[in-house]
Amino acid sequence: MLILMNHDATRSQIDNVIAHVRRHDFEPIELPGRERLAIGVLGTNAPSIHDFVVGLPGVIDAVRVSKPFKQVAREWQPTASVVDVGGVRFGGGAFPVVAGPCAVESREQLLAAARGVKAAGASVLRGGAFKPRTSPYAFRGLGAEGLELLAEARTETGLPVVTEVLTPAEVTLVAASADMLQVGTRNAQNFALLEAVGDAGKPILLKRGMSNTIEEWLLSAEYIVSRGNPNVVLCERGIRTFETATRNTLDISAVPLVHSLSHLPIVVDPSHATGHRHLVRSMALAALAAGADGLIIEVHPDPDEAMSDGPQSLDIPMFTALMHDLRGLAAALPRATVVP
Amino acid sequence: MLILMNHDATRSQIDNVIAHVRRHDFEPIELPGRERLAIGVLGTNAPSIHDFVVGLPGVIDAVRVSKPFKQVAREWQPTASVVDVGGVRFGGGAFPVVAGPCAVESREQLLAAARGVKAAGASVLRGGAFKPRTSPYAFRGLGAEGLELLAEARTETGLPVVTEVLTPAEVTLVAASADMLQVGTRNAQNFALLEAVGDAGKPILLKRGMSNTIEEWLLSAEYIVSRGNPNVVLCERGIRTFETATRNTLDISAVPLVHSLSHLPIVVDPSHATGHRHLVRSMALAALAAGADGLIIEVHPDPDEAMSDGPQSLDIPMFTALMHDLRGLAAALPRATVVP
Amino acid sequence: MLILMNHDATRSQIDNVIAHVRRHDFEPIELPGRERLAIGVLGTNAPSIHDFVVGLPGVIDAVRVSKPFKQVAREWQPTASVVDVGGVRFGGGAFPVVAGPCAVESREQLLAAARGVKAAGASVLRGGAFKPRTSPYAFRGLGAEGLELLAEARTETGLPVVTEVLTPAEVTLVAASADMLQVGTRNAQNFALLEAVGDAGKPILLKRGMSNTIEEWLLSAEYIVSRGNPNVVLCERGIRTFETATRNTLDISAVPLVHSLSHLPIVVDPSHATGHRHLVRSMALAALAAGADGLIIEVHPDPDEAMSDGPQSLDIPMFTALMHDLRGLAAALPRATVVP
Amino acid sequence: MLILMNHDATRSQIDNVIAHVRRHDFEPIELPGRERLAIGVLGTNAPSIHDFVVGLPGVIDAVRVSKPFKQVAREWQPTASVVDVGGVRFGGGAFPVVAGPCAVESREQLLAAARGVKAAGASVLRGGAFKPRTSPYAFRGLGAEGLELLAEARTETGLPVVTEVLTPAEVTLVAASADMLQVGTRNAQNFALLEAVGDAGKPILLKRGMSNTIEEWLLSAEYIVSRGNPNVVLCERGIRTFETATRNTLDISAVPLVHSLSHLPIVVDPSHATGHRHLVRSMALAALAAGADGLIIEVHPDPDEAMSDGPQSLDIPMFTALMHDLRGLAAALPRATVVP
Repeated sequence: MLILMNHDATRSQIDNVIAHVRRHDFEPIELPGRERLAIGVLGTNAPSIHDFVVGLPGVIDAVRVSKPFKQVAREWQPTASVVDVGGVRFGGGAFPVVAGPCAVESREQLLAAARGVKAAGASVLRGGAFKPRTSPYAFRGLGAEGLELLAEARTETGLPVVTEVLTPAEVTLVAASADMLQVGTRNAQNFALLEAVGDAGKPILLKRGMSNTIEEWLLSAEYIVSRGNPNVVLCERGIRTFETATRNTLDISAVPLVHSLSHLPIVVDPSHATGHRHLVRSMALAALAAGADGLIIEVHPDPDEAMSDGPQSLDIPMFTALMHDLRGLAAALPRATVVP
Repeated sequence: MLILMNHDATRSQIDNVIAHVRRHDFEPIELPGRERLAIGVLGTNAPSIHDFVVGLPGVIDAVRVSKPFKQVAREWQPTASVVDVGGVRFGGGAFPVVAGPCAVESREQLLAAARGVKAAGASVLRGGAFKPRTSPYAFRGLGAEGLELLAEARTETGLPVVTEVLTPAEVTLVAASADMLQVGTRNAQNFALLEAVGDAGKPILLKRGMSNTIEEWLLSAEYIVSRGNPNVVLCERGIRTFETATRNTLDISAVPLVHSLSHLPIVVDPSHATGHRHLVRSMALAALAAGADGLIIEVHPDPDEAMSDGPQSLDIPMFTALMHDLRGLAAALPRATVVP
Repeated sequence: MLILMNHDATRSQIDNVIAHVRRHDFEPIELPGRERLAIGVLGTNAPSIHDFVVGLPGVIDAVRVSKPFKQVAREWQPTASVVDVGGVRFGGGAFPVVAGPCAVESREQLLAAARGVKAAGASVLRGGAFKPRTSPYAFRGLGAEGLELLAEARTETGLPVVTEVLTPAEVTLVAASADMLQVGTRNAQNFALLEAVGDAGKPILLKRGMSNTIEEWLLSAEYIVSRGNPNVVLCERGIRTFETATRNTLDISAVPLVHSLSHLPIVVDPSHATGHRHLVRSMALAALAAGADGLIIEVHPDPDEAMSDGPQSLDIPMFTALMHDLRGLAAALPRATVVP
Repeated sequence: MLILMNHDATRSQIDNVIAHVRRHDFEPIELPGRERLAIGVLGTNAPSIHDFVVGLPGVIDAVRVSKPFKQVAREWQPTASVVDVGGVRFGGGAFPVVAGPCAVESREQLLAAARGVKAAGASVLRGGAFKPRTSPYAFRGLGAEGLELLAEARTETGLPVVTEVLTPAEVTLVAASADMLQVGTRNAQNFALLEAVGDAGKPILLKRGMSNTIEEWLLSAEYIVSRGNPNVVLCERGIRTFETATRNTLDISAVPLVHSLSHLPIVVDPSHATGHRHLVRSMALAALAAGADGLIIEVHPDPDEAMSDGPQSLDIPMFTALMHDLRGLAAALPRATVVP
């Protein structure tokens, strides 16, 4: 049960409600939201709570929440959230495309990628400075130098930048130069990192854990939002199944499912999901048609020379053609979707 | 390796090639195709075979086949197959929609469904007369009576009919009244049934086994085609994963993947894949955008009263709205897709 | 709800109970069992039924059944079933080991295998005459000739024989020479085959479908038992997961889980589960320790020359050593397990 | 390829080998080991390397490594590693049992559990002070207070203590009071944490990620070992599959598979794997029979009152009975396994 407080409820009104809840042997939890504070009553939706709190000073309403996640639920906020990333809007009808290389490899590579995706119509630049790698002996990114190159690419192209952060200790450093912080699939249930990015004051791109259910994923988002950071964009990137012909299995049904359960925007990553360049275009169009709020695509000026994920990266001409096709498709969709 | 024979190669030319292959200690297999006979040489792609057979009388060429499936492979036939079902074409740019109830329940129910989906623009009527059920105590369909009702619905609406066949013994009966035979997900590796429908002289709708890889699925299609029945339409209907929010996980990436590996058409079943009515529309649009060759949708005149699969069935107005949206999307696709 | 009738209940008493159930708007189903008839009342466990049927003539009791399967449930029969296969007992404390080659390849191969496994202590001989193969071009077994060779091996060694049956049409033929019929993993939900073997009058070895839940598997067993054949032995053979280092993932927890849910015996197949010879011994010992009612092991006199499944087959000395280790382990188990 | 240096190789000999490798355009990496330094040559096993390095001063041999992991591979160290945890040995024939509550809840609860498992024969006490929880609103452990209680329980019982660490920042704090640090399933690919525990100077219990392949898991261990900490014990705790009757599917075949691929010890956690108390005993016995190097079992003095994981926790009498059964089984195993 969620008890919604008036936006100008006083501290003593809040404390009074909490005391009432405790007196009935339930456990209250304060949930500070964008517009108002709510008080969650965990583990119950008993109508009796509704009856004794509605009428208390400062209380607007008490609503049932049928899911373990609260503040990210549609039941908590019926209207879609819009997340602003350096002027680019995720959610609410736009369809921004995030593009760039898997890893920042060099100044030349990054700038070539940035110019190319900008010219093709991308809205945000992606690029990994700190790379999580399965093997300790693999290339792990340029680190702080990569962040500087991303900042330079932003200055030159005007594109906001999203890059991955791997540890709570690095959040401040990465947040100082990036416009959006990515939490990767292997860290989707790294709860300390989720709380750290919840405190970072920057929008978050939260990838689905490769074996996480939709419910677990939304609870990970709840970790971020419960720290007072409502700017979370979810990213479906494929789940782990028995099929070996693709790197993962892209679960496009997550798009309408998340939209029914949550007010947060959701984008799709067809590059990591499929692992194969020749499957990216079809899956990007499918994601748009399914109602996704954007895409994130790996683009490299010379994929055959990429230090990581080359087989799934598009080159600039392929990406340019994809953007053209996306625009054509968007024009036909019932909703007013705009692809830049 | 596939040795392609001239379309007018004589029996003695064929036997001569076979004898040559045997003399080199390889195992030849005759693969009769639509236009020509080929001779498969199993288990090898050795260039030496190419060298000794090219030049023999009646031989056009010898081509490498990198996959265990042969006649369903793109390498065997580069152009897309078109499968004709009572005048409706699957493959080659059309986008037929198959619709109807999970099970034929009564004359009234079936005719109401048939009229409704016909009016909305469906091309083929579906309906189960013989139903495979996990529990022996569940409703298993009307059987032969269901087949008669389907025939009546065809007569009235003009829609060709597809219905499931469960055993080799029933193939003749079902083939006598249906225009297309469906092999269901639980029978996707029932090899005796695959061979029986391969002999039936009717087009086949082959659902993917719920835990079959793409390669296994194409090998099941190969069973049918290797009996001389080239009219196979594949149907992606979701695979089994750890996610519990949907009945299965719809693997839309199977669409471009199958198109790259095979010349057979592939349609998508968003009803069984998701198990939830409110997810069907998004997944149908996504399948069209991904390049699918059609859809199969569960439609019931009164889903809340359905004897099976009610929660995933659309009613007539929802299906009519979906067909409208599909037409709008198809018009915007780069390829010339026509939704009736 | 299950209404248990007295073992000498008359037909009119039974009809009277059925009429009472119908009058209360529930659907009764007759479930003939080994010792008595029961009447299942589907879809409800309402106490009201208990109240109105207990007291009717011929009724012993009415018991709640919490699962969709009925006659295979522990709630239906609290004591473990014992299935007799040509004098060999599965269930109730024995630990028979079924062994032999994947496929019957020749008289020499089969007799060498049969003599070897007999000498090592195996209780039943396995060998495939009809082989289900993913590819239509693979070796599919010797067919009827294979059945004759199995019969000869039985005559010589005295070992009862289990072999797979693939279609309803072949059940009579296979049942004429085999002591036990195997339903394979790809046919675990081939309901027509399940009913045909339910009518065959021979014990059945029912493999778990590679993506079937325990509940689905027990419902497949219910198909057989509901035809009046109570002699079903379940076989766990690995399920399909994302792990690629093993052919499947052996779910040994299925052993105690099945024992808690059902009275049927369950054996384990570590050969197909792992796909690797060097893992078979450990998994066989683990299955015994977990309480399995037996094993089925692939043994070939010359695994490197096997026509199928060579990498997972033991040779005779490896199998002999395994039997020795099993005997040592069995002696230490709390329950009185006897390995021959 | 691994180039093994003599244990007294000089720095200039090492530098000389590295220079040679670079001159042939390969990338060398120094791998400091327990007894000697090795030089890994990544991405190749070319015999040419063997030829030019063998013979250089200080080089013993150059060996092929066929797997992406190096220092944890059997090929790198043929003999089994033994990891010492406060005097308790994991690996090399012993079979220590780690037991205790999921979470430290109170002084009374922890001491009751510690005394009970000690009396029953457990070798190490487990208990969570920092708990990773799917929901931000769930109980997350007593934190530093929990660590103090664990230290008190150790003092009283003499049992070494293992507890989970969640973030790199907490490693120093937890390492100050625990004898062994646990990395949980959700952090199995939290590479920053893996490196931090690699630097901690304490033995590590590394749980398998719930969707990690064996290869990924061993690469996670490689992260720790490559920091100079060879004391890693692997823990199989079930993987995520489609089966819903158990919390996870325990992959016991991981035990012999890890033993064939790596020299590290591996223990099994049947509590988290099954999620059900009544399945724990069978799976514990199976793990011992399969060759596991120990167990980790959840034990709570009053499971029905547990704040987390109650349904899978044994009470003291059940655990005592299990230890008795394990001893009986161990006595019968071919290898010299000793259960205290």
